[in-house]
Amino acid sequence: MSPEVPAAPRAPATGTSGELAGCFVSLEGGDGAGKTTQRDLLGTWLSAAGHDVVLTREPGGTDLGRVLRDAVLHGDDLDPRTEALLYATDRAHHVHHLVRPALAGGAVVVTDRYLDSSIAYQGAARELGDGEIRDLNLWATEGLLPDLTVLLDLDPATGAARRSHAPDRLERESIEFHIHVREHFLALARAEPERFLVVDAAASPEEVHAAVRDRLLPLLPAGGSR
Amino acid sequence: MSPEVPAAPRAPATGTSGELAGCFVSLEGGDGAGKTTQRDLLGTWLSAAGHDVVLTREPGGTDLGRVLRDAVLHGDDLDPRTEALLYATDRAHHVHHLVRPALAGGAVVVTDRYLDSSIAYQGAARELGDGEIRDLNLWATEGLLPDLTVLLDLDPATGAARRSHAPDRLERESIEFHIHVREHFLALARAEPERFLVVDAAASPEEVHAAVRDRLLPLLPAGGSR
Repeated sequence: MSPEVPAAPRAPATGTSGELAGCFVSLEGGDGAGKTTQRDLLGTWLSAAGHDVVLTREPGGTDLGRVLRDAVLHGDDLDPRTEALLYATDRAHHVHHLVRPALAGGAVVVTDRYLDSSIAYQGAARELGDGEIRDLNLWATEGLLPDLTVLLDLDPATGAARRSHAPDRLERESIEFHIHVREHFLALARAEPERFLVVDAAASPEEVHAAVRDRLLPLLPAGGSR
Repeated sequence: MSPEVPAAPRAPATGTSGELAGCFVSLEGGDGAGKTTQRDLLGTWLSAAGHDVVLTREPGGTDLGRVLRDAVLHGDDLDPRTEALLYATDRAHHVHHLVRPALAGGAVVVTDRYLDSSIAYQGAARELGDGEIRDLNLWATEGLLPDLTVLLDLDPATGAARRSHAPDRLERESIEFHIHVREHFLALARAEPERFLVVDAAASPEEVHAAVRDRLLPLLPAGGSR
C-alpha cells in the first residue's frame, strides 16, 4: 500500500428498508445451497397468502444489470476494485429501479443474493476490507439493508456436487476459497443475528422452507390474505 | 433524505501519481473545447521529444470501459448513483490496467477526461455532492490524481456550434446545464491551482498547445530526447 491510497469510506449509519411499506428478504449462501429453490417456494407461499411478491436476483436483476453480470462473471482480468464497483453498480440500479419502488408499494421483495455476497466473496479474496465493500454498497443503495437475510449454509463440496451447470468464473475458484466464503458468511450472520437466519441447507427443501416461513411471518406487511 | 441514507464517504488523503516514474496529464472541459485535438498535439510533441506516450480517454479507455461507455451514454433511465458508479467502474479498470502500468514504466499518459469530469457533470446536476463523487473516484483509483489537469475553458454555445457529430445523452442537456458544468470546472480549477492550468479554448489550437507545453515542460520525466 502506498501512502496515497485513500482510506476506506466512513461507516454510514446502518439502514434497513425502514419506513418502506413492504418487506425485503435476501437469500445468501454458496453455490448449490438452494437459494433459487427457496426463493421460488417463498414466492408461491407469499402469493397464496395474498401478498404482492417480487422475485429477483443479483447480479442481473435489470437490463443494465444483465450487461454488467456478463462483464463480471466472464471477465478475465478484473482487479478487485473494478469487480467491487461492477457489483455495486448493478446493485444501485437494481435497488433504485426495482427493489425500492416495489417496497414502497407494499410488496415482499425476495432477492437471490444481495450485498452480503459481495462482502463474503470479495472479503474471502482478502484484497479489500469488509468495511470498504460494505460502505461502498450502502452508498450505492442509499443504505438499504434487508429486513431478513436467510443464509443457506452448506459444505462447499456438497454444493459443488449439486451443481447442474457449467461453472462460471467464481465457481471455478478453489475449494479453499469457497470454505473462506462460507466462514465469512457465518461471521456476518453472527455479527447481525437480528437480521440473519442461518439454516442448514443440507436439510430437505421443505424443512428449510418451513424454517424460513417461521422467521419471516412476523415481519410481513399487513395486507396478506386479501 | 431519510435518516437511513449513508453519509458521504470519508475524505481520503489527496494523492497524485507521486512515486510513479511517468507523468499523468488530463484534459478537461465541455463539448467542442478541443480536448482530443490538444491530446493529439501533445502526443506528437512528446513523441518527437523522445518520451513514451499513451493517449487515452474516459469513458471507454479499455474493452470493459467501452461496454460501460455504451451503457452510460445511451442509457435512458440512469439514476445519479448508478451513473456515478458506472463512471467510477470504467475509471478503476482504466487506471488499474492501463494508466498505472504505463506511468510505472515511465510513460507520459494523456487522457481525454478524468475524474474532474465526473465531479463537474454530476455536481452540476446537483443530486450528489462533489465530495461524494470525488471520494468514490479516489477509492476507485487508489487515489491517483493527475500531475497536470488542463481545463480547456469555452462558452458552451461556442462548443456546441463546433460539434460535428450527433449529440449523445449528455450533449443533449440544456444550455443552462452546460453553463453550470463550466462554472463547476472553473471552481475546481480555482480550488487546486497547483494541479490545474486553465486555458481559453477560444484561442487557436496552436496557441492553446503552446500554453500547455509551457506548463507541462518542467513536469516531464527525465528520459525525453533519447
